[in-house]
Amino acid sequence: MTVQGLLTDAARQLLGPETRVIGASRTDAGVHALGQVASLTTPSTLPVAAVRGALNATLPPDIRVRDVSEAPTGFNARRHAKRKRYAYLIDNGAVASPLLRRYAWHVPATLDLGAMRAGLDVLRGAHDFSAFRASPGKSQRPVCHVSALHVVQRRSSVAIIVSADRYLHHMVRNIAGSTVAIGRGTRGPAWMSDVLASRDRTKAGATAPARGLTLIRVVY
Amino acid sequence: MTVQGLLTDAARQLLGPETRVIGASRTDAGVHALGQVASLTTPSTLPVAAVRGALNATLPPDIRVRDVSEAPTGFNARRHAKRKRYAYLIDNGAVASPLLRRYAWHVPATLDLGAMRAGLDVLRGAHDFSAFRASPGKSQRPVCHVSALHVVQRRSSVAIIVSADRYLHHMVRNIAGSTVAIGRGTRGPAWMSDVLASRDRTKAGATAPARGLTLIRVVY
Repeated sequence: MTVQGLLTDAARQLLGPETRVIGASRTDAGVHALGQVASLTTPSTLPVAAVRGALNATLPPDIRVRDVSEAPTGFNARRHAKRKRYAYLIDNGAVASPLLRRYAWHVPATLDLGAMRAGLDVLRGAHDFSAFRASPGKSQRPVCHVSALHVVQRRSSVAIIVSADRYLHHMVRNIAGSTVAIGRGTRGPAWMSDVLASRDRTKAGATAPARGLTLIRVVY
Repeated sequence: MTVQGLLTDAARQLLGPETRVIGASRTDAGVHALGQVASLTTPSTLPVAAVRGALNATLPPDIRVRDVSEAPTGFNARRHAKRKRYAYLIDNGAVASPLLRRYAWHVPATLDLGAMRAGLDVLRGAHDFSAFRASPGKSQRPVCHVSALHVVQRRSSVAIIVSADRYLHHMVRNIAGSTVAIGRGTRGPAWMSDVLASRDRTKAGATAPARGLTLIRVVY
């Protein structure tokens, strides 16, 4: 059962079977979310203050509703999202940390963070990101506006932080895979702009594993 | 199977059945360790540089050997430990974080950190800690020297850090339970010195759950 499915079940049980749940972001299996946002449309008159506790009482403990508030009529968590921020976490320790096992990609190789940052530089702004899209030939428009890109290190963890108005399928995981190829020295930083310009998925690096990806925040 | 048991099995499989494994600290079920130290005695002549990788290849992924080095003859990880540092983690958010679910005690109440620090103050130094010992009547000597005690806050997490030369059974969890009682305002800070002076386990607060406790470091 997906997170969206479990949340919908809990909401319908509490607020009635006509309740609709719309998540801001559909994520692949294995991807995490710390700041997912969902909108609910319901005929129920239950006070908003009671909803968080009641949903959390029904949901399994690895899914938690952090906050609930009333939205203007017509608010749609997916359509009205202006920007979403993701973090891709790399466990860069010599030995994989058991605590990060489900939340990070273990890359024991030495990573050149300066080269990674230089490679990511060309992705800032509005571009056709087809080279980083999992499913070529989809009709979805390929232009995304990347407003922020950072590489942050803390002890032996390295995080790639991406903010964009929208994302193509597997886009952050493909960017992470290519950035790690540059960090390892397999590719130079200039390679990233060749990949971007090619609009060809076969030119980019391997898709990084789902478990390293976390949706951090949705901005409205 | 315990961590000690799994490590002993892996070491014997690699280094021979006569191999002895001594952990610096035996922890209760549900307690974590980031900085456990173990000494191995073995007749094997396998180079030290090969041991870490070989052990990690056999161990389950939630147990990892971080480093292996040769010790002087007679070194005993338990007997020669000078000091051990533990962290007791409290998830102080209104809603329990799914990520901390196995590593923290969820206390949603407002905590007065100043009162908690004032209460802990009297525990610094060498004292008879019988009031914080799980099993009264044990012959074990009850005096421990607590060299450091801190309350640290980061976002909605609060950690109680304790360093001592030795610990009585459940000592940190009992100190954490009493400190939280002070933080909630159920007890005043001065109560801690009454509890300590009483040497009576029934005077202290409830034992905090095992999952919040992590062995951070062993000093030699």
